[in-house]
Amino acid sequence: MAHDEPRKRSDRRSDDDGRTRTVTRPLRLALLGCGSVGSQVVRLLHEQADDLTARVGAPIELVGVAVRRPELHRDLGGYQVPAELLTTDAAALVARGDLDLVVEVIGGIEPARALILSALENGASVVTANKALLAEDGSTLFAAAEKAGRDLYFEASVAGAIPILRPLRESLAGDRVRRVMGIVNGTTNFILDKMDSSGTGFAEALEEAQELGYAEADPTADVEGYDAAAKAAILASLAFHTRVTASDVYREGIAEVSASDVASAREMGAVVKLLAICELGEGRDGPAVAARVHPAMIPRTHPLASVREAYNAVFVESEAAGQLMFYGPGAGGAPTASAVLGDVVTVARNRLADVRGAGESAYAALDVLPMGQTVTRYHVAIDVDDRTGVLAAVAQTFAEHGVSIRTVRQEGHGDDAQLVVVSHRATDEALSATVAALRTKDFVRDISSVMRVEGEES
Amino acid sequence: MAHDEPRKRSDRRSDDDGRTRTVTRPLRLALLGCGSVGSQVVRLLHEQADDLTARVGAPIELVGVAVRRPELHRDLGGYQVPAELLTTDAAALVARGDLDLVVEVIGGIEPARALILSALENGASVVTANKALLAEDGSTLFAAAEKAGRDLYFEASVAGAIPILRPLRESLAGDRVRRVMGIVNGTTNFILDKMDSSGTGFAEALEEAQELGYAEADPTADVEGYDAAAKAAILASLAFHTRVTASDVYREGIAEVSASDVASAREMGAVVKLLAICELGEGRDGPAVAARVHPAMIPRTHPLASVREAYNAVFVESEAAGQLMFYGPGAGGAPTASAVLGDVVTVARNRLADVRGAGESAYAALDVLPMGQTVTRYHVAIDVDDRTGVLAAVAQTFAEHGVSIRTVRQEGHGDDAQLVVVSHRATDEALSATVAALRTKDFVRDISSVMRVEGEES
Repeated sequence: MAHDEPRKRSDRRSDDDGRTRTVTRPLRLALLGCGSVGSQVVRLLHEQADDLTARVGAPIELVGVAVRRPELHRDLGGYQVPAELLTTDAAALVARGDLDLVVEVIGGIEPARALILSALENGASVVTANKALLAEDGSTLFAAAEKAGRDLYFEASVAGAIPILRPLRESLAGDRVRRVMGIVNGTTNFILDKMDSSGTGFAEALEEAQELGYAEADPTADVEGYDAAAKAAILASLAFHTRVTASDVYREGIAEVSASDVASAREMGAVVKLLAICELGEGRDGPAVAARVHPAMIPRTHPLASVREAYNAVFVESEAAGQLMFYGPGAGGAPTASAVLGDVVTVARNRLADVRGAGESAYAALDVLPMGQTVTRYHVAIDVDDRTGVLAAVAQTFAEHGVSIRTVRQEGHGDDAQLVVVSHRATDEALSATVAALRTKDFVRDISSVMRVEGEES
Repeated sequence: MAHDEPRKRSDRRSDDDGRTRTVTRPLRLALLGCGSVGSQVVRLLHEQADDLTARVGAPIELVGVAVRRPELHRDLGGYQVPAELLTTDAAALVARGDLDLVVEVIGGIEPARALILSALENGASVVTANKALLAEDGSTLFAAAEKAGRDLYFEASVAGAIPILRPLRESLAGDRVRRVMGIVNGTTNFILDKMDSSGTGFAEALEEAQELGYAEADPTADVEGYDAAAKAAILASLAFHTRVTASDVYREGIAEVSASDVASAREMGAVVKLLAICELGEGRDGPAVAARVHPAMIPRTHPLASVREAYNAVFVESEAAGQLMFYGPGAGGAPTASAVLGDVVTVARNRLADVRGAGESAYAALDVLPMGQTVTRYHVAIDVDDRTGVLAAVAQTFAEHGVSIRTVRQEGHGDDAQLVVVSHRATDEALSATVAALRTKDFVRDISSVMRVEGEES
């Protein structure tokens, strides 16, 4: 949009020899946080300095790195952060007033929020990888960026190195996105892939993920879907030009996924994935946005089914473009730093030209569709008494809730008799009411698996 | 980069009521060509007008559509192009002087080039899908855009709806791309996929592609790799910040790919794809860029192997991000129009803000590596006399050319005896010299298949 502020860049510096389009003072960048991502940002800024200068049109100068414990940040794979750049006073660093760019890779809500707000107020553009903060309180940040006339970019906050936010915001800006379905958490994908390939249970697969460094000692944020839900909120906001926060996202983790769920998926040519699904639905007052994170069975022929190990992928369905998929490493220091640096180049170019990129686009202001009103399909494995009439009674229970059955498969006999039912599409409300009703039936011994089915019949 | 021209948008119009950031006169767009892509551009401009206005910040008004035969363009799936917008005088349309945006979807070199240059000279920014023109003479267009202070965007020129140019230009601008490997021609992928899935020969698969509308009556541009080579030139230029033209791209088509090549690939767990490969190599005077299009065997486990039918995908390897893949429909009216409209939104925003997006980035100015110096691997099927010592003699021939053998497999006996050799990596020169030498040997009856092998051991 129009940027009506005076051109600050015109206060040319003494190093400007008159060739104003080719020689410009360095852009000053401060880095907040120097862990696995931050240290890679420092490395890339150093190793690719010449390319970055050519691509931006001016050098980028690292002028400060805020860390909690400077003594841990001496050696970064061959490149030493000059000791005089390290500081423990992040607040003073962002407030120094001469910064062009601030990169925030601390994570979490505070002090990240206060630092980003201070950076913007003090005239810097901000690049952040902070999904939790954006998903909880993005609107405060966007408003501050708007007010300051500065950029706030955050490609690295979703799916690591995979360029997905820029394509949603820009490449698909002339299209109408209908659904975004992503594998956006590498830890849970590693665990589910392990369960699928080796037949192990959740606990064993989690342990292996922890041993290999794919899962944290406290895996809650990943395993319970909090991480994916934050990313779903960001994806939904961008895809549908509206505001979705983490608390708007329905969330189920994978801790309850059993080896028999995975085997049952395999039986029907499907695989279990933790999906972040953002889509348009019909609300009471018109179109509404639905965002949810839960394990689901998808057909093995679906492009997302082949996403193995800790890789991420985001599948986008839009009106004109059709089906697109973006695939790559969803985490890790260097991949995430690649996304950060891509934003740094864009934001730096904008600073040089004294313009802003597109800000928040939330004009659609959609209602959030409650999970109960979301349309999906269920896979239900029912341990039943092995006697005549049970199938009819089960079918009757589905029918009473207005849910059609797509397939039913009988497995085992006697005490092992099981009916595996896959429904047609219905509201989650109707489907869960059906399952609740089944639990009360005397011919039902147990409901051994309930899982949503996605990726076809849409 | 810095845009130092006076702000033209400040000559506010009478429809400007003072709220300069929210109300702006419509941006005037002219469309050149109204075939399968152009008609979809018109439809989307009409159907998504409200969304486009919200995303751009001003309405986009279609003020003219240049076509050769107006009588063919009355009905566009429910939306009629107003008759008064149609014109056969494209040159006058682009020269009218009050255009903000020109969309060129005529294709071919002329008159497209002259029209684009005139549009830029007359103050319009240009969005084009014209791969042939960009690959042959992009530098003329970029220079004209630079001189005019206007944008030239071309996402739709490569891989249809798949956002790949913007990710390469912007998302990966802080990273170092090492290789781009793409399936960028849907016709040939359909044919090769058909040959793989049904065992048919090339001629039969081509015929089916033609019947289904995936191949043209004259399939030369697709089958001989010209289309893919133009796209390879564009991808290489963007990925490596240099200039590569279509004539720099080594090119082999798929007409010589036989059912037995495809079967032989299957034997070794591979599949034949027509690949556009752009990579950095070592030239005589430092790094050089290599771009080539040819059929190749890739392992079935490679992400590109699962790209079926007429879909496209581009696989990118970069230093920090690692391996990324972008997948989707590579052609078709609506998908290509989606990419065009995405560019229209960006370019329109830039016009409103009176800025330019990043122009050509060719600072690296790399030499082009000749095909002979490019490093690859060969799969060679050699019909040999079935006698002792032949394997040793074949191995000796490889060794004499400095080529190591990775695997060798003997098939058949007597008159059907065949050795299938897969080499380690070597220059194409050394590999082709090896094959030429083998042809002269008395124990070699025929070389029945020679194909490059890609996608591993890199």
